[in-house]
Amino acid sequence: MQRADYIICGDYVLTMNDRMDSIKDGAIAVKGAEIIDVDIYENISKKYSSENIVGGKGRAVLPGLINTHTHAAMVYFRGLADDMPLNDWLKNYIWPAENEWLSNEFVFDASQLACLEMLKAGVTTFNDMYFFCDSVANAAEKIGMRAVIGAGIVDFPTKTGNSADDYINNAERFIEKWKKGVRDELITPCIAPHSTYTCSSETLKKSKKIAERLDVLLHIHLSETEWEVSEVLSRYGKRPIEYLHSIGFLDERVVAAHCVWVEDREIEMLANHKVGVSHCIESNLKLASGFAPVGAMLKSGVRVTFGTDGAASNNDLNILGEMSTAAKVHKAVLKDSVALDARTIITMATRWGAEVLGLGKSVGSIEKGKLADIITINLKVPHLAPIYDVYSHIVYAVMASDIETVMVNGRLLINNRMLITADENSILQKAFEWGRKISLWSNGVKG
Amino acid sequence: MQRADYIICGDYVLTMNDRMDSIKDGAIAVKGAEIIDVDIYENISKKYSSENIVGGKGRAVLPGLINTHTHAAMVYFRGLADDMPLNDWLKNYIWPAENEWLSNEFVFDASQLACLEMLKAGVTTFNDMYFFCDSVANAAEKIGMRAVIGAGIVDFPTKTGNSADDYINNAERFIEKWKKGVRDELITPCIAPHSTYTCSSETLKKSKKIAERLDVLLHIHLSETEWEVSEVLSRYGKRPIEYLHSIGFLDERVVAAHCVWVEDREIEMLANHKVGVSHCIESNLKLASGFAPVGAMLKSGVRVTFGTDGAASNNDLNILGEMSTAAKVHKAVLKDSVALDARTIITMATRWGAEVLGLGKSVGSIEKGKLADIITINLKVPHLAPIYDVYSHIVYAVMASDIETVMVNGRLLINNRMLITADENSILQKAFEWGRKISLWSNGVKG
Repeated sequence: MQRADYIICGDYVLTMNDRMDSIKDGAIAVKGAEIIDVDIYENISKKYSSENIVGGKGRAVLPGLINTHTHAAMVYFRGLADDMPLNDWLKNYIWPAENEWLSNEFVFDASQLACLEMLKAGVTTFNDMYFFCDSVANAAEKIGMRAVIGAGIVDFPTKTGNSADDYINNAERFIEKWKKGVRDELITPCIAPHSTYTCSSETLKKSKKIAERLDVLLHIHLSETEWEVSEVLSRYGKRPIEYLHSIGFLDERVVAAHCVWVEDREIEMLANHKVGVSHCIESNLKLASGFAPVGAMLKSGVRVTFGTDGAASNNDLNILGEMSTAAKVHKAVLKDSVALDARTIITMATRWGAEVLGLGKSVGSIEKGKLADIITINLKVPHLAPIYDVYSHIVYAVMASDIETVMVNGRLLINNRMLITADENSILQKAFEWGRKISLWSNGVKG
Repeated sequence: MQRADYIICGDYVLTMNDRMDSIKDGAIAVKGAEIIDVDIYENISKKYSSENIVGGKGRAVLPGLINTHTHAAMVYFRGLADDMPLNDWLKNYIWPAENEWLSNEFVFDASQLACLEMLKAGVTTFNDMYFFCDSVANAAEKIGMRAVIGAGIVDFPTKTGNSADDYINNAERFIEKWKKGVRDELITPCIAPHSTYTCSSETLKKSKKIAERLDVLLHIHLSETEWEVSEVLSRYGKRPIEYLHSIGFLDERVVAAHCVWVEDREIEMLANHKVGVSHCIESNLKLASGFAPVGAMLKSGVRVTFGTDGAASNNDLNILGEMSTAAKVHKAVLKDSVALDARTIITMATRWGAEVLGLGKSVGSIEKGKLADIITINLKVPHLAPIYDVYSHIVYAVMASDIETVMVNGRLLINNRMLITADENSILQKAFEWGRKISLWSNGVKG
């Protein structure tokens, strides 16, 4: 008998490997940060002993979900300004709030809440874009969550810089500090030029050079709104994706959030350059940005994955919600009830998410030798009874509250729906305290 | 001091009355089935004493949600056949399954599961259309849930009848048995001719006469798919709503489910005849039926409410999900991020739902003299922190798992997320047992 740190078992183990193997009455042996074996429970229980058995009867086991675009700390602005025109929302509420409130302390506290929310919804990795990035990284590391963290770059002054060079210098410093080159590190830094309309060509090119030199991802907002397309057209005579193509920005380092207003030849560019797309459907709908052509992108071989965007425009960080909404909405858009089937949707939320974030060799599926980022779902609840197809259930019926245990990097972070690595109550209390202060300020501004 | 059976209190009491009053630190006194007072907690606690205090700090209190279109017993077919063309789904899976499995026992057991699922998601009233209606009614009554139950009518033979007359006679018998004319009865029977393409003009007219004579609602599927419109056009030379108008079917008794393929002049007909519409957005998306013109219907004064449809095409019975999906999707459809704001959405799911079901005088809002159908929401959870606007939270962030207590007719049915009036485990066990049998049969049929 070999010792395992954990044995994780369930009625269904969905490996999400490239053969889409699922194991009935399966189990996973975990040692240190790694998955050391995956098989039927009968075989695992003969080969390994462990004091820690996770999951069991009535459970489904799958790779942790991957959130490929968010601004974690914006959870503190959740619901601050809803049902508004996009410009009013951004210019009169979100930007002033950020200008008033952002600090290392704010971002650390808020990012902890975001990690807690995401973990409880089965998300094990998130790809962030924001300011005060050391605080985002410290929060994720403290909680034990995996994160790709992009230092935001714009051309205009904010609390963290006066010019593009300030942000770029800060991004270099941040990346050099956090990039340790060790495969099982939780935090992967990257560089995040905000968009084609807030960064000049020069800023975008500089960002790209740094990404190449330091070997990190480029995280950018791209073709989110119709306004953005017309703005970029008027500045450069090209649509945003064509424009990025023309300045040599596009390659497989790029994670492009949104991609709503995208024409066929632009889809070809995304596919040819192996750009990863983060589809943020709930944010796109809520802000009335439009319907991304996900069917066409998938058809052209573009790896489309799921992002929640920030909680100010969603208003949660729940990838299961994105999956369910996308699976349904795109069927109606495409007039095809077969499109975006459950297996495709789960692949987008797991294996492809990891690949797009450059973590495909480490996480995104349950395979021997990969890192143990694993979640279990309790299937014994009224809204999941009876059960005919576990993939269908996960996409169309499972709720965040059904996520029972969450493991990241071989460490159990959520057990029986409770966070182990930090005190949930104090994270919540801090959120409500910040909220009260922001609320008073906001009422003052409005009044 | 007066005695109250219950005092229900919370940080926010959203009355959903026609002035949209919300009470900060509010409370409700309940005696028997009735709400006897609504005020700030300080006043209620001075006037009433009660052994049963429900809710408290960090809670929101609102009227129970109303599901205006479902086929409750179809929960047993949840996920049986997903990601399929509509015709294949209906003809090769759902109809054969119904033909094989439906019975009084099946419908009773399945409807109990549906009631359990709906209550746990904050739904206190549902409007059903199915067969073996006595069993639906018995299940709802046993659990203690409020229901309008429509005896289904079609022209073709099924397990419960050979001809339209069989179903019509059965509907009359069912209505006469369950219609007691007492205001606080939980069960309201009605008649449910299935659709314009499965019922002849004669059948529809007979149904309407019975509805008038026995003073009950008419529950019908209407303009759900593009196919239905072309079918009715080819039979009668009119679109479905025009056709129903021409045979004198439309009036305020009619609850029309779906209304997806509806033109402007048909919207006027719905508005003029005060037809109630049940918008089933998740089902419409998942079956690729299309996007109902909800913005235009609301603008014309049509009372649009929310239905889940059956769990075979959704796949849950969660009105909060319908609310959130509708609020977001229609913003994108209308290219207007201000459309279908949170207060409108909650009105559709509560007061209007009650009005459309003919229960507007009894339920749908929290007002003195109304029946006590009330739910509380626990706001102290990560995905609801911090809080700026409770209406926004309910529409964009609250999950079914945040529903803590559910009262129907002054009786507490769910307390601390557990059903009180029946044994949850045995309802679940039965569901899994039926599921195993149906699964074996289904694999045999497919094989």
